[in-house]
Amino acid sequence: MNEFELIESYFRRKAGRRPDVCMGIGDDGAVTRVPAGQDLVTVTDTLALGTHFTEAMPVKSIGYRALAVNLSDLAAMGARPLWFTLNLSLPDVSAEWLEAFSLGLFDAAGAASIGLIGGDTVRGPLVITVTALGCVPAGSALGRGGARPAESIFITGCPGEAGHAWRQLAAGQALSVDDPIAQRFLYPQARTAEGLVLREFASAAIDLSDGLGADLEHLLASSGCGAVIDVDTLPLSAALVARVGEQRARELAIAGGDDYELCFTIGDAMLPGFLAATQGWACRVTRIGQTAAGTSVRWLQNGQPWTSVEQGYRHFDGEVAST
Amino acid sequence: MNEFELIESYFRRKAGRRPDVCMGIGDDGAVTRVPAGQDLVTVTDTLALGTHFTEAMPVKSIGYRALAVNLSDLAAMGARPLWFTLNLSLPDVSAEWLEAFSLGLFDAAGAASIGLIGGDTVRGPLVITVTALGCVPAGSALGRGGARPAESIFITGCPGEAGHAWRQLAAGQALSVDDPIAQRFLYPQARTAEGLVLREFASAAIDLSDGLGADLEHLLASSGCGAVIDVDTLPLSAALVARVGEQRARELAIAGGDDYELCFTIGDAMLPGFLAATQGWACRVTRIGQTAAGTSVRWLQNGQPWTSVEQGYRHFDGEVAST
Repeated sequence: MNEFELIESYFRRKAGRRPDVCMGIGDDGAVTRVPAGQDLVTVTDTLALGTHFTEAMPVKSIGYRALAVNLSDLAAMGARPLWFTLNLSLPDVSAEWLEAFSLGLFDAAGAASIGLIGGDTVRGPLVITVTALGCVPAGSALGRGGARPAESIFITGCPGEAGHAWRQLAAGQALSVDDPIAQRFLYPQARTAEGLVLREFASAAIDLSDGLGADLEHLLASSGCGAVIDVDTLPLSAALVARVGEQRARELAIAGGDDYELCFTIGDAMLPGFLAATQGWACRVTRIGQTAAGTSVRWLQNGQPWTSVEQGYRHFDGEVAST
Repeated sequence: MNEFELIESYFRRKAGRRPDVCMGIGDDGAVTRVPAGQDLVTVTDTLALGTHFTEAMPVKSIGYRALAVNLSDLAAMGARPLWFTLNLSLPDVSAEWLEAFSLGLFDAAGAASIGLIGGDTVRGPLVITVTALGCVPAGSALGRGGARPAESIFITGCPGEAGHAWRQLAAGQALSVDDPIAQRFLYPQARTAEGLVLREFASAAIDLSDGLGADLEHLLASSGCGAVIDVDTLPLSAALVARVGEQRARELAIAGGDDYELCFTIGDAMLPGFLAATQGWACRVTRIGQTAAGTSVRWLQNGQPWTSVEQGYRHFDGEVAST
């Protein structure tokens, strides 16, 4: 075996085997069985060194995030995670790097009960692609395009912390693994269980990867709606407010990115059932505004237009773009 | 829209839409419907600049091959192509590059009736991942592990030409797009239709990506068999023999790589049906030897052991490894 075949055998040993996997790693492809009556949901994300992660990050976190960002996409569709593939382009092979990377990857996989079924390992610059497959009952996938005017807009959790941590990293500052704010960037928790519930109540959903401001715009554009957001209702992390002040915390909640929380819309008829269903949730759920006719998004604070210094956020080059 | 969103909208316009795609590009994920009674087959390949392709190649070929190598994996499993995702890590955005790349990609997709359903485009070094999904009737996927001793070993086509062209490229020589030998590397034809037939007759199959020598070893190792190969029966391309001589052509047929032909095993009971089924095939099918008990592979010429200067082939660094 060459070194890349050794890597594949290494991941194969750690991969385990789900009963719905007929053929796993080691053939030309994987053969799996989608549960009867379910649609297949396919999501995929690529992470490149410098753009999405840095060498200052714990390698375990890079492995964890490679899968977690895909689990978040599945959650936003209301899908149950089934299987994933891992494509690694690696400049060289370090046992230490692989050990840490796989530790993070399989931590995320174990928590979501998702099985590694294949992939590819090649020599090249450090670029990581994960493609994840999940399922939803036929016809019930939750998309971005189903919101209608006069629905409630909710988010899970408190966005902002991850965006702050990423800005520290991008500015060359080290993150402390003991810092809960850094943890939110390094080890985001996909809202898998919440997504499964939302599938029954929400009209539209998206996960917060680019930041609430940008992602809400994506949801609204797909749905053909506008919205009014009450900036004062945005749930802010107390730790983040203590660290950067309330105004900056609010900006990061809107423009931060990398939160992997869910943003979704609920029509009035579904509201009582939804609110009852969230009683058992471990994460906070907050109504932040409502959809409206038209296409504009109005961010209001005390009834006045709220403007941010840092509007929008793009991953590319790790830079903050004003768009 | 930023430049990467523009790229995604560009691919979306070109993607078309299959009736089994409930939600395609543009949401958090794609939602598709696997035909009832079918297993899902997932294959994936990553191509990195310098390792799998060079800047001297036509960009159209890079796009074509990114999908074709995956179609070949599906063919080796006996799977019908359904959908694929495209992950592009790009250092910069050139409209000319994207136009040529997508032309090749959608040429390959159109020929196989496979639909683009999603992907990711990020800024980073040039690395391309395609993940393709296909289906087989439940329980009927063709793997590498089903061969038993005393079965016939066949290959499609004449391997060797693509390996010769790649060696030219790796040595810095330009390929002429009018050269049929170069075409075999630049635009490999996945044996999709043949794979669907093989599913009914073959006990094991693999596609020839690393070269007949290496890939046959993979099949035999998975099956727990050895083999005896009659090197004189290997089908050689007349054009390749004219270019490099018979001895070198034979070496390239065994150790060349990038052929994307199929190598497979047929038990005696299946042989008559298989031979009848191949009557309509456009590509050549040749019996090159038979499986045997044990684990060794004997390459014989006139009953004597045949040895190659160039045994085995690895993609990594484009180098030829003696393994």
